[in-house]
Amino acid sequence: MKIKATIITIGDELLIGQTVDTNSVWIGQELNKIGVGVYQKIAIGDDATQITEVFRDAAQTSNIILITGGLGPTKDDITKKTLAEYFGVGFTFYETVWEKMKAIFEKRGAKVLEMNKSQAMLPSNAQMLPNQRGTAQGMWFDENGVVYVSMPGVPHEMKHLMEQVLPKLQQRFELPQIIHRTVMTAGAGESTIATMLTDFENALPPNIKLAYLPDLGVVKLRLSAYEDVATEEVDLYLEQLKSILKGYVYCDGELSLQEVVGSLLLKQKNTLATAESCTGGYLAHLITSIPGSSEYFLGSIVSYSNNLKANLLHVQQETLGTQGAVSEATVIEMVKGTLQQTGATYAVAISGVAGPGGGTAEKPVGTVCFAVGSKERIVSRKLHFFPSRLENIKVSANTALNLVRKFILEEI
Amino acid sequence: MKIKATIITIGDELLIGQTVDTNSVWIGQELNKIGVGVYQKIAIGDDATQITEVFRDAAQTSNIILITGGLGPTKDDITKKTLAEYFGVGFTFYETVWEKMKAIFEKRGAKVLEMNKSQAMLPSNAQMLPNQRGTAQGMWFDENGVVYVSMPGVPHEMKHLMEQVLPKLQQRFELPQIIHRTVMTAGAGESTIATMLTDFENALPPNIKLAYLPDLGVVKLRLSAYEDVATEEVDLYLEQLKSILKGYVYCDGELSLQEVVGSLLLKQKNTLATAESCTGGYLAHLITSIPGSSEYFLGSIVSYSNNLKANLLHVQQETLGTQGAVSEATVIEMVKGTLQQTGATYAVAISGVAGPGGGTAEKPVGTVCFAVGSKERIVSRKLHFFPSRLENIKVSANTALNLVRKFILEEI
Repeated sequence: MKIKATIITIGDELLIGQTVDTNSVWIGQELNKIGVGVYQKIAIGDDATQITEVFRDAAQTSNIILITGGLGPTKDDITKKTLAEYFGVGFTFYETVWEKMKAIFEKRGAKVLEMNKSQAMLPSNAQMLPNQRGTAQGMWFDENGVVYVSMPGVPHEMKHLMEQVLPKLQQRFELPQIIHRTVMTAGAGESTIATMLTDFENALPPNIKLAYLPDLGVVKLRLSAYEDVATEEVDLYLEQLKSILKGYVYCDGELSLQEVVGSLLLKQKNTLATAESCTGGYLAHLITSIPGSSEYFLGSIVSYSNNLKANLLHVQQETLGTQGAVSEATVIEMVKGTLQQTGATYAVAISGVAGPGGGTAEKPVGTVCFAVGSKERIVSRKLHFFPSRLENIKVSANTALNLVRKFILEEI
Repeated sequence: MKIKATIITIGDELLIGQTVDTNSVWIGQELNKIGVGVYQKIAIGDDATQITEVFRDAAQTSNIILITGGLGPTKDDITKKTLAEYFGVGFTFYETVWEKMKAIFEKRGAKVLEMNKSQAMLPSNAQMLPNQRGTAQGMWFDENGVVYVSMPGVPHEMKHLMEQVLPKLQQRFELPQIIHRTVMTAGAGESTIATMLTDFENALPPNIKLAYLPDLGVVKLRLSAYEDVATEEVDLYLEQLKSILKGYVYCDGELSLQEVVGSLLLKQKNTLATAESCTGGYLAHLITSIPGSSEYFLGSIVSYSNNLKANLLHVQQETLGTQGAVSEATVIEMVKGTLQQTGATYAVAISGVAGPGGGTAEKPVGTVCFAVGSKERIVSRKLHFFPSRLENIKVSANTALNLVRKFILEEI
């Protein structure tokens, strides 16, 4: 029998569009990885009658019901009370939880309120899932063949609890062990990669699946092997896939390009600086979103105007005049200027037409030039992307990072 | 009777966590604005039996059922066929839709496929909602007192169709006219603003509500008046609210800080340049995410290393040595250096401890210094934000924009 789950998110804020629900997206991914199919996702308000009805309906179609939200100490948060009523049970007071809660409040220098005492009470049929990250405990119920799990809605608390829940689900439903292998690719779109992998996919045995998870400039590929597949067999397919996509795979696992570039630089004890025109600082933002990036990233010159390209990066007025700001000649000079101004080991430069304005017949919106180099050599590329401004900015930043990676590895 | 809606999103990709559903968030907001309560949101796969069951259940609790997704030409997209079966009707072929579709394909230089013909067929009881942005038309059904609307899942196509749907819903259900007034504030957190507005909120008549929609560094406030409130009365409350929050309100309407700053600069024909340390290019990214920003934004010097602060921005080694990179003295010199290097009318500089590392007892994570200035004068601020890196980056960028705005308006 296929094990199926319903994900229920509770909270009025979800219905009026105040919150984007990323919890259920993450839960869906994790369930998928352990071989549980998500039957449906339901968002409802803090309404006891409605919550009870949804529990009852979900138990008809699903073996697993995962619930987030509505566990706070205020009167709006009614999930726990509703669960007890739904199961027809009373409450058990957990002395240990109460003591820990008091200690947390004391440490913060706050007075613990009587209303927080309710957070130490759990429905009597609940198995407690200890929450080390907050005051609302997780709860596991196993009734009439259906497992109900109630978790707080705060994302990092929910994820912390799911770390306990996922292996428990695997054990409880004797889920087959699923093997996953992920590789990250850059430099080719989803359809290009799919074309390259047509024969490979057709030759896959029915219990090994390939999933494409595309983002701007990056495609994540996941091989999943279900039941009776030996690890060695999956790894053979993985090697085959990587060899077909040689030149596009930038790492095993799920790292971002900026993390991979950062590790390379750290290992070499080398540094990077960037010069950005159309991406307007977004490339530097990606790099500096990684903690510790100051170890290898010196900075960026965002030369949005031609004057800055000339004055700060020493791009020649003649180059700007004859070739234009969006040209390989200009980005090559931007790299030279950046290396000179910053003293970095490597520099990368981007100039393009992000849009919606500024396009010409010769250089339509989405035309972007890149250069990457060191004192010794510089390479450049001219590429064409999308009609949308933000997409162009994001795909250009990832493309630049991939060029830096290939340059460092001497693959370009 | 309170009019209630169920939002149904259809697509396997929603269940395995491949897509973050922002459609239903936006729809929830828009329904809320016209006085329709969202009863529930349900995400389900491309499964005819399940879709039918969900339609049937939703019709028991909701007057309005809004459906997105599953309208493409491939066999996975079964929403339309399922709707026809659910209502027990056949299909009508729309010659005009077919002609238009052929024209679109021709323009793209692509051959129209036979399978696209299905997109010109609608269930016979459907009222067509013309889609000017794509080949899947919207559909409006009014059966047994319940309105069903089916729309494509592509966000900009869905929004385009909702522009037709919202007024139709207002008319069909004789919804009371709701008046909304939005103001944007910056420089104070949600709780500070709530404290300032305590008396104001308590004095509001029961049919006027105030909603807080906080983001990092910015809080949106919305006054909504339900039934029997004259526009003049709402506007009086609005003026009162703005006067209480004087100094924090940065615009009527829903503009971002970078849009407001951009308009001010455009009007004055003045220019801006930025110098960023801890925000690492994110401020420049916000500014350049606005089309046309090259009219007033010259660029940014992201001086992530102290060497760049010294060499490119001429911050004195002595200042860096005695005061540190995170100091008002340093950001003031960064502003001077930026003005000199770029020739901009205004410059703004940010330096702080974004975290998670780099904090000290004196300058803990979240300490951020700002300076904004022109040739004539420079002002600086030292503020304290959160323990999280990305939050610090985002709130710092918004704070800097707000300081630029106030400086231009001579409010600081």
